[in-house]
Amino acid sequence: MDAREAISELVIANRVVAHLKLVDSFGHVTIRNPENPQRFFMSRSRAPSLVTKEDILEFHLDSAPVDLRGFSPYKERFTHGALYRARPDVIAICHNHAHELLPLAVTKTAMRPALHSASVIGHDVPVWDIRDEFGDTDLLVTSNEMGDSLARSVGKGRAALMRGHGSVVAGKSLRDTVFITFYLRLNAEVLIKAMSMGKEITYLSAGEVEKSGELHSQPLSQGRAWEEWCLQAGVAKLPL
Amino acid sequence: MDAREAISELVIANRVVAHLKLVDSFGHVTIRNPENPQRFFMSRSRAPSLVTKEDILEFHLDSAPVDLRGFSPYKERFTHGALYRARPDVIAICHNHAHELLPLAVTKTAMRPALHSASVIGHDVPVWDIRDEFGDTDLLVTSNEMGDSLARSVGKGRAALMRGHGSVVAGKSLRDTVFITFYLRLNAEVLIKAMSMGKEITYLSAGEVEKSGELHSQPLSQGRAWEEWCLQAGVAKLPL
Amino acid sequence: MDAREAISELVIANRVVAHLKLVDSFGHVTIRNPENPQRFFMSRSRAPSLVTKEDILEFHLDSAPVDLRGFSPYKERFTHGALYRARPDVIAICHNHAHELLPLAVTKTAMRPALHSASVIGHDVPVWDIRDEFGDTDLLVTSNEMGDSLARSVGKGRAALMRGHGSVVAGKSLRDTVFITFYLRLNAEVLIKAMSMGKEITYLSAGEVEKSGELHSQPLSQGRAWEEWCLQAGVAKLPL
Amino acid sequence: MDAREAISELVIANRVVAHLKLVDSFGHVTIRNPENPQRFFMSRSRAPSLVTKEDILEFHLDSAPVDLRGFSPYKERFTHGALYRARPDVIAICHNHAHELLPLAVTKTAMRPALHSASVIGHDVPVWDIRDEFGDTDLLVTSNEMGDSLARSVGKGRAALMRGHGSVVAGKSLRDTVFITFYLRLNAEVLIKAMSMGKEITYLSAGEVEKSGELHSQPLSQGRAWEEWCLQAGVAKLPL
Repeated sequence: MDAREAISELVIANRVVAHLKLVDSFGHVTIRNPENPQRFFMSRSRAPSLVTKEDILEFHLDSAPVDLRGFSPYKERFTHGALYRARPDVIAICHNHAHELLPLAVTKTAMRPALHSASVIGHDVPVWDIRDEFGDTDLLVTSNEMGDSLARSVGKGRAALMRGHGSVVAGKSLRDTVFITFYLRLNAEVLIKAMSMGKEITYLSAGEVEKSGELHSQPLSQGRAWEEWCLQAGVAKLPL
Repeated sequence: MDAREAISELVIANRVVAHLKLVDSFGHVTIRNPENPQRFFMSRSRAPSLVTKEDILEFHLDSAPVDLRGFSPYKERFTHGALYRARPDVIAICHNHAHELLPLAVTKTAMRPALHSASVIGHDVPVWDIRDEFGDTDLLVTSNEMGDSLARSVGKGRAALMRGHGSVVAGKSLRDTVFITFYLRLNAEVLIKAMSMGKEITYLSAGEVEKSGELHSQPLSQGRAWEEWCLQAGVAKLPL
Repeated sequence: MDAREAISELVIANRVVAHLKLVDSFGHVTIRNPENPQRFFMSRSRAPSLVTKEDILEFHLDSAPVDLRGFSPYKERFTHGALYRARPDVIAICHNHAHELLPLAVTKTAMRPALHSASVIGHDVPVWDIRDEFGDTDLLVTSNEMGDSLARSVGKGRAALMRGHGSVVAGKSLRDTVFITFYLRLNAEVLIKAMSMGKEITYLSAGEVEKSGELHSQPLSQGRAWEEWCLQAGVAKLPL
Repeated sequence: MDAREAISELVIANRVVAHLKLVDSFGHVTIRNPENPQRFFMSRSRAPSLVTKEDILEFHLDSAPVDLRGFSPYKERFTHGALYRARPDVIAICHNHAHELLPLAVTKTAMRPALHSASVIGHDVPVWDIRDEFGDTDLLVTSNEMGDSLARSVGKGRAALMRGHGSVVAGKSLRDTVFITFYLRLNAEVLIKAMSMGKEITYLSAGEVEKSGELHSQPLSQGRAWEEWCLQAGVAKLPL
């Protein structure tokens, strides 16, 4: 994949996460530049459903823009830059406020996978609270220090919930990241209902997380969802 | 913005709140006349999804019509007139029965923001109960006395829940008002689920409400949602 | 309104209740023949979303068909015949399995209105359990005796829940019946969430039910919803 | 029905279960070959919403493919082969991860029907936990031994929940299987909400399950839903 293809895939991913309502007007998805891993691509500040390739900007890993071309960048780009810096294995990131997982975020409920398809979220998803380290803020990750703190919370994992805010997901490709985000949300929905029922939840065992996570990270599994999502979102044949 | 533009924006806002299901066949959104702050614009009695500029009527701040042109006005226009009278800073108002926040309205559960994007609802959203002051009624705000009572409940805030009925939201512009209404509903949904889980909720601190509220009141933030909502509602290019 | 117009309105009502998901493939809506109050109109056994005027059959009040024209009738027509017989004031009936109210039906939770728009359901909605009088059945109302029993449960009211099954709603016109059914469901949804939150519910007072019920039974109120629902369901200009 | 017609019906069923969101990108529906009951038809590994007749493959009852024609088969085909082998009366099977029933699957909550239309799920739906017999796995049914274990859990019934995974449904025809799956999900949704309300559930009696189950298994009942679902899914006139 070269930079041009990465940008095409990023536009498609924006449309897909919007179609799946993983993001509303806010939230964003990014990809590391395959031609220069010290940079990443991200849309200008715009609702993901509307992003086109003309909206894509490039940033350094300290989240300074390469060239804004007169556009306003997302304020929260530091979430992305810091994670790419801390985690050379991460190729794509999604920051979202998916509505269905917010009850976990406001109750500071760390999450574990209970669904086989949610094994891709990893063994644990912690809750990062920006207030712990930075006191009263507008809750946005708007500096490298904040981004570094969030990246420490993600650690070697795949995701973190953000108290009062949403979540961040880090994957090995755009498809992987969108797939993890989708099943992170589903796992949250299912846990919230199970907790409301007052029943004990049987989580995946550590071995199940490993085995099922490996299976659900394969291109054959993720590609099956990706093919359908692109068609549903109307971007299966997007001229890019 | 002149009166003609205000009316155009009001038609768009009606379509947007209908598309977002913030209102069903009932509920209404209004704007103060920018050319005469002692008057406001409001549709005739009609489902918001169907409102056109021909439906827009003008009212005095005591909610008496300037000219009905043969149309039936909304019975609850007093909600709007009273709030515009009490609050010169308020430019637009939305009264709604958004289904998802009704569980708070019937349990008289006052609300605080737990989501950063819901910081725009302000520090507290009280529950106004028409029965406290007016006894048994049809629950509609159909007099200046009732409107004044509701306006006192809103106070210097952005919104109030109405027991057994819905909510009212007061903003600095139509976009601000729709934005607040959207995140008021989302905050309600998230709190209701969190309460059902039986977990303790971490609300925004006072400082967070201030800082995040300021951020989310900016045209850059609200415009990002507005652009998307207008497109989704099919009114991005409405000939007005 | 003559019989031909009643049939047109009935087709429209079928499409509207299907569009609003008040019924799924099952459930039905009927109207008393305005030219002969000892008869009523009902579709042949078909999903309401697909009903056309060719599908409409006529029945006596003992639910015997006037002329089946080779079609299969709904087995549960006795629900309708019995209610029309017991209640000369009832002009239209909707039997439905609206998914959102089923949690009340399986927990035998009688309902009172907590929303002003739900005042139209009346002071109380009882739960009728077919097993009490008829023992083990397939739960369908398939005889005049069963229909009479259900009609006794409805009494002078507007609706009854049916244990393990759904609900029946009786109104003064098709629009009234669909309106009551819509807000019966919404009231149920709101109560279910409020109960899950573990909070005390403030119901409408008796006086509020009377006053708000009268208001929401007026053609001006119901017509506002009807106009929108017909447009949404694509039957605003149905050639009939 | 000959093999060619069975394949057509299978394509239609794939589109229907996708439209009804009984499956997401995963899950599958199959039919026994009417010309050779020792074989069954199943799509290649693909999202059900995209399946065409060119995607249909044939398998022996040990789930070995007759001819893959270069395609990748679903890994979980053993679920189907084993059930067809154990139950000569079963003609069609649906394995799904319907999102709404997953809270029961992760809390290991066996299910009984509380809705008359859910009588088709039979007297009891057990929860099968792959871990009990096979320890840590990726939770997929990928061997005849696993399939046989799951089939023993289904026993003479219609369905089983699968811990942390989803469910499997076995019916007498494709329509029967889709119908059972639809009402299995609805029953789950209703029970989950009823449990969250903290109210006692009245389940169908054994006699009611028998009588209502017989009624809802008839072609007249199931055909009414099938006609509507095919139209909604856009496959009522599929050229096959």
